[in-house]
Amino acid sequence: MKNTQKPSAMPVHKYRPFHEQIRVDLPDRTWPSKRITEAPRWCAVDLRDGNQALIDPMSPERKRIMFDLLVGMGYKEIEVGFPSASQTDFDFVRSLIEEDAIPEDVTIQVLTQARDHLIERTYESIKGAKQAIVHLYNSTSILQREVVFRTDKQGVIDIALHGARKCREMEKTIPETAVFYEYSPESYTGTELEFAADICNQVLAVFEPTPERKVIINLPSTVEMASPNVYADSIEWMGRHLDNRENVIISLHPHNDRGTAIAAAELGYLAGADRIEGCLFGNGERTGNVDLVALGINLFTQGIDPQIDFSDVDGVKRTAEYCNQLPVPERSPWAGDLVFTAFSGSHQDAIKKGFEAMAAEAERTGKTVDELEWAVPYLPVDPKDLGRSYEAVIRVNSQSGKGGVAYLLKTDHALDLPRKLQIEFSGVVQRKTDAEGGEVTSDAIWNIFQDEYLPAADDDAKWGRFELTSTRTASDFQGEVELVVDLRDGDEVSRAQASGNGPIAAFIEIMRGRGIEISLYDYVEHTMSASGDAKAAAYVELDVNGTRLWGIGIDGDISTASLKAVVSAANRAIRAEVREPELQSA
Amino acid sequence: MKNTQKPSAMPVHKYRPFHEQIRVDLPDRTWPSKRITEAPRWCAVDLRDGNQALIDPMSPERKRIMFDLLVGMGYKEIEVGFPSASQTDFDFVRSLIEEDAIPEDVTIQVLTQARDHLIERTYESIKGAKQAIVHLYNSTSILQREVVFRTDKQGVIDIALHGARKCREMEKTIPETAVFYEYSPESYTGTELEFAADICNQVLAVFEPTPERKVIINLPSTVEMASPNVYADSIEWMGRHLDNRENVIISLHPHNDRGTAIAAAELGYLAGADRIEGCLFGNGERTGNVDLVALGINLFTQGIDPQIDFSDVDGVKRTAEYCNQLPVPERSPWAGDLVFTAFSGSHQDAIKKGFEAMAAEAERTGKTVDELEWAVPYLPVDPKDLGRSYEAVIRVNSQSGKGGVAYLLKTDHALDLPRKLQIEFSGVVQRKTDAEGGEVTSDAIWNIFQDEYLPAADDDAKWGRFELTSTRTASDFQGEVELVVDLRDGDEVSRAQASGNGPIAAFIEIMRGRGIEISLYDYVEHTMSASGDAKAAAYVELDVNGTRLWGIGIDGDISTASLKAVVSAANRAIRAEVREPELQSA
Repeated sequence: MKNTQKPSAMPVHKYRPFHEQIRVDLPDRTWPSKRITEAPRWCAVDLRDGNQALIDPMSPERKRIMFDLLVGMGYKEIEVGFPSASQTDFDFVRSLIEEDAIPEDVTIQVLTQARDHLIERTYESIKGAKQAIVHLYNSTSILQREVVFRTDKQGVIDIALHGARKCREMEKTIPETAVFYEYSPESYTGTELEFAADICNQVLAVFEPTPERKVIINLPSTVEMASPNVYADSIEWMGRHLDNRENVIISLHPHNDRGTAIAAAELGYLAGADRIEGCLFGNGERTGNVDLVALGINLFTQGIDPQIDFSDVDGVKRTAEYCNQLPVPERSPWAGDLVFTAFSGSHQDAIKKGFEAMAAEAERTGKTVDELEWAVPYLPVDPKDLGRSYEAVIRVNSQSGKGGVAYLLKTDHALDLPRKLQIEFSGVVQRKTDAEGGEVTSDAIWNIFQDEYLPAADDDAKWGRFELTSTRTASDFQGEVELVVDLRDGDEVSRAQASGNGPIAAFIEIMRGRGIEISLYDYVEHTMSASGDAKAAAYVELDVNGTRLWGIGIDGDISTASLKAVVSAANRAIRAEVREPELQSA
Repeated sequence: MKNTQKPSAMPVHKYRPFHEQIRVDLPDRTWPSKRITEAPRWCAVDLRDGNQALIDPMSPERKRIMFDLLVGMGYKEIEVGFPSASQTDFDFVRSLIEEDAIPEDVTIQVLTQARDHLIERTYESIKGAKQAIVHLYNSTSILQREVVFRTDKQGVIDIALHGARKCREMEKTIPETAVFYEYSPESYTGTELEFAADICNQVLAVFEPTPERKVIINLPSTVEMASPNVYADSIEWMGRHLDNRENVIISLHPHNDRGTAIAAAELGYLAGADRIEGCLFGNGERTGNVDLVALGINLFTQGIDPQIDFSDVDGVKRTAEYCNQLPVPERSPWAGDLVFTAFSGSHQDAIKKGFEAMAAEAERTGKTVDELEWAVPYLPVDPKDLGRSYEAVIRVNSQSGKGGVAYLLKTDHALDLPRKLQIEFSGVVQRKTDAEGGEVTSDAIWNIFQDEYLPAADDDAKWGRFELTSTRTASDFQGEVELVVDLRDGDEVSRAQASGNGPIAAFIEIMRGRGIEISLYDYVEHTMSASGDAKAAAYVELDVNGTRLWGIGIDGDISTASLKAVVSAANRAIRAEVREPELQSA
């Protein structure tokens, strides 16, 4: 069996291997025999490196939501902006300080180039903070020296030292703020290691690290240029060549051009780094920064506390998607919609057996399942530990089952279910078909669907505590919507009224008055053009009294459809409470 | 600066580190000192492992489009399905053979479990093919032995050997087909290495590899359970322990649970593997299979021919998205919409200088740019080599600086702004974008530019106190130029005349007559050759009544262009006086 691969016509002559550009020579490396035993120091750079790479950079409001999210998860060092380069960033830093939004144990970090007026502006921005990290950088790579700065090594060292000295000078202007330093030889991966060590050591001499005031040396793979073992070698090499090593915090800042940023961070950490900078879900310039969620949960799966709270990954994802206005991909590690989903029959079978074995083991040992070591094939982590449900994992039918159900609803009823709802509904179908057996026709699927989501659609099969009988909305065009509904609750119809930033928000208020606590996770709507009439379908994913589930509403008025969807979910949650108490703990 | 990170409440007690589960001990590893010098043997498994993980698995038509794409790109080994598990897969394999769709030098591969009736069906499916790889697997991990198969090591070996012998028996039934073998100890990463080697060696003894008929031993990270260096160690270990090594092709099949599949493939290849199985853009179960596009283009950027054609990545992406009905994420390596995009001002500036340096080098050496070594900061590969345009490279948002704006004006409008004008104009753009948010398109920049500097360019948006309607110059060749202009001042057009050592000096005199005091600081002009017509652009930096600012004029006549530039600056100064007094200090 010969290899029949043929040369391509790709212009390989234009590219030189990394080792011909930068020499990284460390035959006595020790990192490959090491193991990670504790979490690194994390620094979240979503508000700077992440933000600068967005099609639609964060508004002040979105910035603040991201900051609060990062603080809430447990990040203690947060790069909040590049205040000297952007008025928005400057204002944001000021607002954090002036509104006292920075907890005692959290340190904000601000980036600045090594230029006088930018450094001055940077110190202006952090005045009044209890503590802050000033992150000074200049580019050091061979290519940037030649092409961008047109200067020699000494010229680049001069830029760095001038900037560092300016920082020391400026720190005296804000004596009430404890200023710490980080220096980045930017484009480090394109810099000769000897030169990188030289410039860092000269900057360190200016910053004068002490045990109480360590200095961060950040070694970014500004562009990922080689496989991650080479980056790790370079980090171990740098660790051996930095002066005053015990007072230096070596920080990694991997980008993902080659798709190996997570590996670069892990191997670089093995190689002696102390700290890792990255973004949630790998947002950032080009292919992004290293993914902090993947790194943290990777540690968790090895029994190492990430020192970050990942117990609600879906919530983190939702907020990040809102702030970044970019979706987290379906296959993003630990967080993507599909990563705990097994479509293959043999995988599903093994997973099911794994759950059963754990349940049996719990019974045998008199423990709860949560006290046991996690051991389910194809599921390297318990989705529940990340706040994700088992729904997607074990209730998806065979390939054709799920795809087929969605296909039939779309073709025959013009309903285009969101993916997560497809997964939920295929679980419903599977429970019915497991119980009843046999082939499922399109009509049978439609009946199951109506009964599950549209309780009031058919008079004969009507069920559900709530039903809307009329709705009226009024908007004052000032951001407030006034909603009046006639709502059947059990056998009694009454009128209720509330306002909110939209009809759903107002209706959630009304439901709260009935003892139903609702929060909204997802909302999708589409017109049902294929069916000929002008109806709209609305899909909402809600948490109703602690149960997470979908509701669906269909109506000629899109606003009413969305309220019906909320009613649908509320009725389903109540039915689950009554009929299937085990669902709530699932 | 203390580390203030705190323990989380994550249930770490449920997880055991990998090294306590599987021992991989290779202190004398050699792979970290090795380098990749040539492409591995590739095997594309999009039609099997990729397809089984799709929400909406491929129809026969989409399957065929994917197959033809893979063949067209240069893949020579293609896993086309699991024919014994799915009628669709079976029919697809038959259609490939019966429609003679498999080129001479391409080998299809089919997956089968080690069970008699499945193996029989598998051979039925490949009957008539010139050659085929039968890929036999059974699960070998500790967990699956315990939980799924409830058997001991010998039981699992028996399953494998029984399957292998059945294959040898069945190959006699299709003598016209050259059958090759691949064996996977599935869930290899959860299998003790000694046991993995043992079972592989016993299977090899049945398959009897020879130089002409090598056997593939595929070592999948069915679930990625450890960092990629551990996988590489295990591969090097296996290479030392497999019998008949020279006739064995070691194949990798990394999954991406921890986000390090690309690294695992690269390090595993360094560690002695010969072959890599993966999917385009990393499609596949859960977080996916290793991304063949990333792996191939990673090689390309090192000057190594991937032996696969990536010259139209956008086309490949479009087809894969159609077949998989899943989007390729924005930040997917080399292929995502945003991976060649620089929003940051300093990145944009460096990229612009990189392009200019390459153009200058080409001119200096009499070569074309494509003959030079690629060297542009922040762009590790020439997007053009992947069939992508430069369009997407420079995109402007509120975080961008002058580089991007200047690049777009140069590329799209042949305007090469002086550096100080770049700074001035990027401030104008930034104020607009800070106010409005979002990305700024090239068209929007052009509109802002025209409105700012070319007040009279567009009748609808016309503003500005002054406008030239005609100019005449006469030179006496004695150092004096006589200038006559028709000048609109407000609503009134009148003729004016003056002389000076050049038209600008004369025009400044005319303006002085209207109460506008002007002095000239800088003057730059260039022809706009790129735009095809013979226009010229003139840039003047003036002090107008105490305000220093730039003006721009565009005209077929360079002298008129320079006068228009003076008018542009004068109008801007007057507008600033009226509308935005703070601009003057900006």
